[in-house]
Amino acid sequence: MVRLTADGARRARADTLAGEEPLEIRVAGAPYSVTMRTPGADFDLVAGFLVSEGVIWDAGQVASVGYGAGVNPDGTRSYNVVEVRLAPGVAPPAPTLTRHVYTSSSCGICGTASIEAVTRASRFPPAGDDLRIRLEELLALGERLRRGQQVFDTTGGVHAAGLFAVDDDGTARLECLREDVGRHNAVDKTVGWALREGRLPLRRAVLQVSGRASFELVQKAHMAGVPALAAVSAPSALAVELAEECGLTLVGFSRGESVNVYAGEHRILA
Amino acid sequence: MVRLTADGARRARADTLAGEEPLEIRVAGAPYSVTMRTPGADFDLVAGFLVSEGVIWDAGQVASVGYGAGVNPDGTRSYNVVEVRLAPGVAPPAPTLTRHVYTSSSCGICGTASIEAVTRASRFPPAGDDLRIRLEELLALGERLRRGQQVFDTTGGVHAAGLFAVDDDGTARLECLREDVGRHNAVDKTVGWALREGRLPLRRAVLQVSGRASFELVQKAHMAGVPALAAVSAPSALAVELAEECGLTLVGFSRGESVNVYAGEHRILA
Repeated sequence: MVRLTADGARRARADTLAGEEPLEIRVAGAPYSVTMRTPGADFDLVAGFLVSEGVIWDAGQVASVGYGAGVNPDGTRSYNVVEVRLAPGVAPPAPTLTRHVYTSSSCGICGTASIEAVTRASRFPPAGDDLRIRLEELLALGERLRRGQQVFDTTGGVHAAGLFAVDDDGTARLECLREDVGRHNAVDKTVGWALREGRLPLRRAVLQVSGRASFELVQKAHMAGVPALAAVSAPSALAVELAEECGLTLVGFSRGESVNVYAGEHRILA
Repeated sequence: MVRLTADGARRARADTLAGEEPLEIRVAGAPYSVTMRTPGADFDLVAGFLVSEGVIWDAGQVASVGYGAGVNPDGTRSYNVVEVRLAPGVAPPAPTLTRHVYTSSSCGICGTASIEAVTRASRFPPAGDDLRIRLEELLALGERLRRGQQVFDTTGGVHAAGLFAVDDDGTARLECLREDVGRHNAVDKTVGWALREGRLPLRRAVLQVSGRASFELVQKAHMAGVPALAAVSAPSALAVELAEECGLTLVGFSRGESVNVYAGEHRILA
């Protein structure tokens, strides 16, 4: 890599870049999805993705997760195919055209239908009000996430998601932080960790993410039973609608001094 | 929306949020893909996506693009289904599990195979060296993109892509700027515009994007014949590999005072 500056300087530099590789997810012997991801925590990524899609919601529903038997063009073993075997009685998913949107031929394709599909798909009771977080703790989560990012520090180029457990006194402890070139993958990795630890639904956790809050991220929080999602940047209109419909707390522009609350303000102790 | 600040203030505010709605893309009568996008420039989005996927590369290959006949649950017309009819003799695409990765059962799934698939899929000759851009122009593109963002100014929450035409003297003119909650959609919207304007391959253009440069964005630039991609943030390792393989210029961390050049430095007049 070469850095060119406005004053005409030209400096060659060693550089560390974030990894990005395709991952094929196979479930019950059939191809299910392909995503680009940063290698690492692959089994958690796959498990969390299956939680997000409503395929599983308990670790006992998975018989095994492992790398497939594939090889690369040069004959080396491929670590880009993950095979999931489901426990007996667990229904395999239908292949979908997309990872991100539930579609239903009966109700058309629109934001309202997408919201209804997500609310129907959740396997956990509504989040309730077990979680209460103090405002000063909430304000600090974005910076705590940023400080915890190891890959970002070397590459400057990855998203992160962090699960913060909130105690009875409203303070937050970072329990799981994952990084990825895709924000949705970083979230899936944390959810897969929680599944493996027997922690779903995550009733006493705040999910903090870098970047924006999209519909998809609210969906993932909801499917994991997380009652509060905090983003460093702005949410979309549909993300706010989904949070309201699911009873989630959704905050954006969480940058230390202030935070915008779009839904579920009652969980914040100001 | 309510803004809470560290000093305990609580201010209710009117708020403008970026739109996000599902879009189903149907090609030749069959469902092809579903994506979440910010409504607007939908036909360009669909056309650009089909260019990115290697389905079309000339406006004459499209017989018609229009909204489908669907209705929303409340009976109103849906603007979330776009139907594409291809011209006679144009092969319809096979449905894919993903928008983002070419897969081939013959060569495994890995970064190298992904790169080979993209290089094989391009319909245009290699980019060549018609493009030369002055460094001071290149350094300014990120800020010019940011200034041109209208939706961002009101919502703070969308990505952007801009096509800058570069003249013989190395100066750049903004020709097309599009915004979307998804960066890949913003790029597809500019490529669809270029297809409609008969401008492919975009031999004398720089594609400037907000955020990171992923494999997918380099793929889209290459499929549109764009010789240079500039990102405000970092590229991934695979994005750099693909740019090198395709002969693209790839720059990152383009923030006014300096720029990191990862591939194709010869197109920059320093």
